[in-house]
Amino acid sequence: MKHTKAQKLRTLLDTRPLIAGVGARDALDARLIENTGFDFVWASSFCVSVAHCVPDASILSMTQFLETARAMNEVIDIPIVFDADTGYGGVANTVYAVRLLEEADMGAICIEDKIFPKQSSLLPGGTHPLVPMEEFARKIAAAKSAQRQGDMVVIARTEALIAGLGLDEALRRAEAYAAAGADMILFHSKSKTPDEIVECVKRWSGKVPVTLVPTNYPDLDEPAMEAMGKVKMVIYGNQTVRAAVKAVEEVLQEIRRSRGARSIEERIATVNRVFALQGEKMPEKV
Amino acid sequence: MKHTKAQKLRTLLDTRPLIAGVGARDALDARLIENTGFDFVWASSFCVSVAHCVPDASILSMTQFLETARAMNEVIDIPIVFDADTGYGGVANTVYAVRLLEEADMGAICIEDKIFPKQSSLLPGGTHPLVPMEEFARKIAAAKSAQRQGDMVVIARTEALIAGLGLDEALRRAEAYAAAGADMILFHSKSKTPDEIVECVKRWSGKVPVTLVPTNYPDLDEPAMEAMGKVKMVIYGNQTVRAAVKAVEEVLQEIRRSRGARSIEERIATVNRVFALQGEKMPEKV
Amino acid sequence: MKHTKAQKLRTLLDTRPLIAGVGARDALDARLIENTGFDFVWASSFCVSVAHCVPDASILSMTQFLETARAMNEVIDIPIVFDADTGYGGVANTVYAVRLLEEADMGAICIEDKIFPKQSSLLPGGTHPLVPMEEFARKIAAAKSAQRQGDMVVIARTEALIAGLGLDEALRRAEAYAAAGADMILFHSKSKTPDEIVECVKRWSGKVPVTLVPTNYPDLDEPAMEAMGKVKMVIYGNQTVRAAVKAVEEVLQEIRRSRGARSIEERIATVNRVFALQGEKMPEKV
Amino acid sequence: MKHTKAQKLRTLLDTRPLIAGVGARDALDARLIENTGFDFVWASSFCVSVAHCVPDASILSMTQFLETARAMNEVIDIPIVFDADTGYGGVANTVYAVRLLEEADMGAICIEDKIFPKQSSLLPGGTHPLVPMEEFARKIAAAKSAQRQGDMVVIARTEALIAGLGLDEALRRAEAYAAAGADMILFHSKSKTPDEIVECVKRWSGKVPVTLVPTNYPDLDEPAMEAMGKVKMVIYGNQTVRAAVKAVEEVLQEIRRSRGARSIEERIATVNRVFALQGEKMPEKV
Repeated sequence: MKHTKAQKLRTLLDTRPLIAGVGARDALDARLIENTGFDFVWASSFCVSVAHCVPDASILSMTQFLETARAMNEVIDIPIVFDADTGYGGVANTVYAVRLLEEADMGAICIEDKIFPKQSSLLPGGTHPLVPMEEFARKIAAAKSAQRQGDMVVIARTEALIAGLGLDEALRRAEAYAAAGADMILFHSKSKTPDEIVECVKRWSGKVPVTLVPTNYPDLDEPAMEAMGKVKMVIYGNQTVRAAVKAVEEVLQEIRRSRGARSIEERIATVNRVFALQGEKMPEKV
Repeated sequence: MKHTKAQKLRTLLDTRPLIAGVGARDALDARLIENTGFDFVWASSFCVSVAHCVPDASILSMTQFLETARAMNEVIDIPIVFDADTGYGGVANTVYAVRLLEEADMGAICIEDKIFPKQSSLLPGGTHPLVPMEEFARKIAAAKSAQRQGDMVVIARTEALIAGLGLDEALRRAEAYAAAGADMILFHSKSKTPDEIVECVKRWSGKVPVTLVPTNYPDLDEPAMEAMGKVKMVIYGNQTVRAAVKAVEEVLQEIRRSRGARSIEERIATVNRVFALQGEKMPEKV
Repeated sequence: MKHTKAQKLRTLLDTRPLIAGVGARDALDARLIENTGFDFVWASSFCVSVAHCVPDASILSMTQFLETARAMNEVIDIPIVFDADTGYGGVANTVYAVRLLEEADMGAICIEDKIFPKQSSLLPGGTHPLVPMEEFARKIAAAKSAQRQGDMVVIARTEALIAGLGLDEALRRAEAYAAAGADMILFHSKSKTPDEIVECVKRWSGKVPVTLVPTNYPDLDEPAMEAMGKVKMVIYGNQTVRAAVKAVEEVLQEIRRSRGARSIEERIATVNRVFALQGEKMPEKV
Repeated sequence: MKHTKAQKLRTLLDTRPLIAGVGARDALDARLIENTGFDFVWASSFCVSVAHCVPDASILSMTQFLETARAMNEVIDIPIVFDADTGYGGVANTVYAVRLLEEADMGAICIEDKIFPKQSSLLPGGTHPLVPMEEFARKIAAAKSAQRQGDMVVIARTEALIAGLGLDEALRRAEAYAAAGADMILFHSKSKTPDEIVECVKRWSGKVPVTLVPTNYPDLDEPAMEAMGKVKMVIYGNQTVRAAVKAVEEVLQEIRRSRGARSIEERIATVNRVFALQGEKMPEKV
């Protein structure tokens, strides 16, 4: 008998007021996130798309995301919350993905109600048509019933606020998704202040707990979320890869400018620090 | 008819006194390297292993490295120098790899004379047995003759200095590899000062040009290399991923400490900067 | 400079009255198809889906099909006609696929005007809604303009007959797709007799040549197609995998029945025959 | 809690006198093997190499074999016995493979004592040097201790007879491998008659049960193996792919000869039979 990461995630949700995770681009990010004490890794379609330097617009295939998430799972003990975008097409595509994700020991799957192929939610000027509510509810139900083991957490993400459809529609959809079996609801917002999301959570029936992604409204911190009562999960979506972009660009520019690596030595991790992360001594241990 | 990246690399080598490239962990790194004005990307087995958080010890398979390099090639115009470790086993493995690499439009392949499976050259306390010189010369010859197109640059990397075998052995091996058809020689050293490598290049016959990787001896900069006369290529092996590790760790710790993402906003790239890197508008252009 | 498989395919189309290819499930099938003297390999989404034992319903991802086609290309000299289903979503997905396919040296790409996710055209009781004609014409135009090299053949496949929309609609769509830049038109039919397809070709303006897939109407043979004048390509879609299913099932049943492998030895290829196909001596040649 | 395929395999071994499995090239083969009533699927490096049309000589990478085995596991309920060749290099490579295989829910792993890169055991004129016995025993011990769950069956395969080292050496090695923790021993022989292997099993101490692969000596059937007492597992290594090669070649030749698909219709499975294998109706079920 094998304990699944899904069970681990459910235990965390049952015993903690609020759990926190961070988006990762690859296994290295995932290991750093675990090392820092976070509760889970967000296998982010945005971060993985950025790692491939392609738009986060259903360009990479499900199997590419899955392969990256598998590589993460190999090197961490905390669970992964897998960002499955729209579920990769219709119900059959979602079912196929759910089976592979469960086999790959994912802790949770998050699916959003946008039309495939999607655009990145935070893209300026992006348009975000949603699938009909009933259709997405069927996808959520399928994501539950397609599981063999059955304990992988299903997070229904509504993009109603991103699509400009307003709070009522967001709440109406959330209710339908919870009724269809979703274990959690993710309300996504790109408002620059927390007001919209705070109001949304306040009006939410609380039938199932809420996940938030405060990328655009970083003023909403964990103590504030805890105080709201219904929020059980926070995802810091893409700060890792944004930190890396800035640091790597600066180092590259300095190497180019100075035509050498001397001056950047103090600004980067040592080779030995990296060896430690890789568990370079792994072979000897066995 | 299609112009290959190998031809592009050969043109660079023919027309520039010294070309410079940087190790990449994935396509994002590759794009940043191109953006900063470097001449090529080093598809580094160390960086890609670090991205997977496994030791750089022949753990990842050739196809995993190749897939990463293909993803890099998709988003850059500059050529890739592919780090093929030991060639992944015997001559047949090298031949198979060469055919796939050529098909994948790599600019160059670099092979080293360590025994498979290898250990990372800079690992403290690592041991680095070499294959017999004649055997590795056969591998180099095969890496040339196995090409269908024939213009992919073959870099023979000798680890004789890393293995503690001294300058004479390094030069003897380099001579044999050049005679076997290598287009360039990479002398690898982990001395903390440039003296060893400077002496080595000074004594080198110059039959083919030299590649250097000044990770451990960053005091040797590009003007100094150009002055040495025989050095045509410099590889900054792993500074990108080391910059990322440091920056990502710091940001994660600050999120953990402050329980929010507010305080790190100024230290990371904006979401719009990342969108630009992804070419987020790609679909509209077509 | 490298000669592409696309150029090879164009030369074949220019110099032969009719070229013939067969659907393959993997590289082994592809090698057998080349050995038998066919002109190209059809990297069939049906056959590859069958190899994975999943429905041919946009379940496998583009990258899985591509990986299989790459493995085929490695072991054959004849070109591949790549079955790209609906193009994997919207225009951006098709553009991304086209770039990877061109990089992978495919001879041609075939795209059909069904909605993603699709169902297998020959599935009893399947429904096959089509995308609007103008939308698919844009996809065809993008499949042309997204190419860097530009010579990969684009085959526009209309499923109008499969969808029960009749000859007029099939011809109207074909005309639009040819105007959008398609190099060839594939009229697909599941009629059990050749009448429908013969009539369709007869009425076709002939603006670009026609591809046929006589799976359901095998009475239409190559001499008959040649006599029709506008048909330049015939694809035997799935006969290889159907032959394998029957033969493998029979052999398995006999092993099970006899509880041994003695009685089936004469019904299967020898191990040495298989070694020859693998080019087992490859390493020694280099 | 999740029941593993390894537990399923152990239960089979505990409750049956002899279990039988067949080599598969892909998921389709695996499904056919399960349908016919066999107890397990042999994820054969020979069959998978043949599917890629490359020599079975450590050319494909571990991850390619693993990916194929994962695709098999998705569509069958019976366990997989995974053919891991030499373990892909040294102890560290074996450890890495074991962890991925366990995560991928393999029932058993089989490792052989040849040197990496290996040659196919049945190749005429092949040479098959072995690693020292103590070194391989360490690899077996590592394959046990590297498991997290711990119930994946480890089969130690000795190639001493293939290498021409005789029965004494085969038995001496088998004893050492069993002492190191192997759950089963596979004695491999390419003798054309069963005498050698019968004598070998007779002299075997029986410390752990035996696996046989009667490819070259098909006269030894299951009743005879059962009568020998110590044999618990029989693998029909490559008959499926050999059946497919013969059938596909004949069908291709007939299509080529007749320039049409009419005459082969009766010799191949129907399209509807293939739809049934694919579970084409899967989406509707959910």
